[in-house]
Amino acid sequence: MSDLNSVRKKSPLVHNITNYVVMNNTANALLAIGASPVMAHAIEEVKDMVAIASVLVINMGTLSEKWVDAMLLAGKDANEKGIPVVFDPVGVGATPYRNQVAASIVKFCNPSVIRGNASEIMSLAKEKTTTKGVDSTASSNTALDAAKRLALETGAIVVISGEEDFITDGRTARTVKNGSSLMPKVTGMGCTATAIVGAFAAINTNFMEAATSAMTAMGVAGEIAAEYARGSGTMQLYFLDALYNLTAETIAERAIIVE
Amino acid sequence: MSDLNSVRKKSPLVHNITNYVVMNNTANALLAIGASPVMAHAIEEVKDMVAIASVLVINMGTLSEKWVDAMLLAGKDANEKGIPVVFDPVGVGATPYRNQVAASIVKFCNPSVIRGNASEIMSLAKEKTTTKGVDSTASSNTALDAAKRLALETGAIVVISGEEDFITDGRTARTVKNGSSLMPKVTGMGCTATAIVGAFAAINTNFMEAATSAMTAMGVAGEIAAEYARGSGTMQLYFLDALYNLTAETIAERAIIVE
Amino acid sequence: MSDLNSVRKKSPLVHNITNYVVMNNTANALLAIGASPVMAHAIEEVKDMVAIASVLVINMGTLSEKWVDAMLLAGKDANEKGIPVVFDPVGVGATPYRNQVAASIVKFCNPSVIRGNASEIMSLAKEKTTTKGVDSTASSNTALDAAKRLALETGAIVVISGEEDFITDGRTARTVKNGSSLMPKVTGMGCTATAIVGAFAAINTNFMEAATSAMTAMGVAGEIAAEYARGSGTMQLYFLDALYNLTAETIAERAIIVE
Repeated sequence: MSDLNSVRKKSPLVHNITNYVVMNNTANALLAIGASPVMAHAIEEVKDMVAIASVLVINMGTLSEKWVDAMLLAGKDANEKGIPVVFDPVGVGATPYRNQVAASIVKFCNPSVIRGNASEIMSLAKEKTTTKGVDSTASSNTALDAAKRLALETGAIVVISGEEDFITDGRTARTVKNGSSLMPKVTGMGCTATAIVGAFAAINTNFMEAATSAMTAMGVAGEIAAEYARGSGTMQLYFLDALYNLTAETIAERAIIVE
Repeated sequence: MSDLNSVRKKSPLVHNITNYVVMNNTANALLAIGASPVMAHAIEEVKDMVAIASVLVINMGTLSEKWVDAMLLAGKDANEKGIPVVFDPVGVGATPYRNQVAASIVKFCNPSVIRGNASEIMSLAKEKTTTKGVDSTASSNTALDAAKRLALETGAIVVISGEEDFITDGRTARTVKNGSSLMPKVTGMGCTATAIVGAFAAINTNFMEAATSAMTAMGVAGEIAAEYARGSGTMQLYFLDALYNLTAETIAERAIIVE
Repeated sequence: MSDLNSVRKKSPLVHNITNYVVMNNTANALLAIGASPVMAHAIEEVKDMVAIASVLVINMGTLSEKWVDAMLLAGKDANEKGIPVVFDPVGVGATPYRNQVAASIVKFCNPSVIRGNASEIMSLAKEKTTTKGVDSTASSNTALDAAKRLALETGAIVVISGEEDFITDGRTARTVKNGSSLMPKVTGMGCTATAIVGAFAAINTNFMEAATSAMTAMGVAGEIAAEYARGSGTMQLYFLDALYNLTAETIAERAIIVE
């Protein structure tokens, strides 16, 4: 069965500790792909929520002290319970605080997949780079070596999303060439990609496969949405429509994956 | 005058202490129905905001300690001032923390209306149930007895939303059969229903009537939106359009309410 | 070069400390106009984020203690670094806490532009007014004298948005007559206006000009969106589409600015 059909069939509970900007989008994207999203960040309950979840997605977009405490607590607990952790180091490189938090999460939460843009992945791999808030200033291509090194160091699958998406375990790499230039014009598309990676990592423990399936679904849905969108506003909603209507057949027809 | 026309005419101020995921949706839904939404959660100001509001809506979707303090403070104060409280126990049953917070709010804030999905209402009524994050695993029908018991125990009107919506005061019950299967595919539709119940509870102190009017408006708007929507993305916006264009006449034509 | 073209060319980093309700909308609006948004509020990093930003936008819509601390810290730091501060006193007048916070931000953060609705500007100028949550109860016209006084007292350009928008430095005033009655039916349109003012203030240090360009772009995009929208839901997205597709030529054709 395709990964998409598995997500739709099993409807995994995806526990998100994520940022304020994208909570609505990512919840809607997870519902559209067939998963069941929950957002919970209270220290008092994150362990209980992890216990019933199939995956934990940590996104540090709008971090603050208590949220970071909850991320670390939930992440460590997910490790103990054998629940995969997917990590989105939003804006790492922009401030020392972000760098320190991202390093802690990588160290203590042992993510199975890390997804970021090129600047973020380079920064996380301690490659010299400049960042601009949460937007990338580097191309995915430039960042590939950094991604491979980060994957080898951490044991995580590393995903760089951009005009082309790279997915690597440190030794091999795949490129997903689907997508649309309208996607980065919608805020939180990267965060949505991370959440969708979470949904697939919940149903396929081959995380290289899961991440590839997720990024392909994202790219294909983005392409379909861009055919109808009249700007970045309608793009946001048509993307959700496309995810909602996506089939394994459409993905098979449109996917451009280069090993 | 119909309840809808009263909302549009009086434009009641609806004070929401709600979750991060749905704040934008619920504010837009309240504007679309003709109410005036305000979101405020600081301990320093919730009592002052309650003082100028016509109703207080408490939604515990993304709860944490300070927010819970604010909910309890605002809820007690609303009671003292005779301002109705509408409560949405999002995800109750999923974690012990949620159970404890929900019980405190019911106990100390004396809600006039409680709205949840079947799992949430069963959990709040201490019926044996399993929950899955914030999504229901039970049908509305199964939960009806629990809802009646909860209504009698608390004195609140209890609303279960789902494929059919039940509204009960513990003795009698009504079923609203409007709606669309696309509605649960949009995150926060339940939270939006609770906010809309708030708008109607602000203008009609017969809370059984107010809740029925609100759930009927939701269901009819959902049906209309689903006729045009091409997926869960456009559904979200077309639903707001439908609420915005809704008339008392359209509701009268389409409403399916069974006593 | 027109201000719009400058924004699109320079893509300034706009650092927002803003409210939960509108974060997604304002990020999307900033992307649509060509700017680069970042949302960051942690005490631990706001100074570092200000350091790489071209403008700081402070919006107190859903304020609480720690956020206010971050706003004041970031605002003072922006002053020291010569980075313009744009302030949106959401809901000032509704509670004493909001009044006190707004006064502190004006006093300590020295905003270059203050944008509010008529009630908010009157309240901030200590004009006798009543407020209703975050919605205005006064017309822009009534508030113009208050705006002029506030501008003279603070040295800020003051913008009142409403059916007509007024922009004043205290001595002269301009009126922008573009816009649509559907705009106030979308939550956070005022907050979006403030963010867009931020984008223009980042590229034009004549803040009277920058604010005029921003409010004109908002109004023209709103008009275009309203021609297609079928309600307040589609309005929200078509507005983003219109911002995304906006050109200096369209603005020149449609702008109605009265000195």
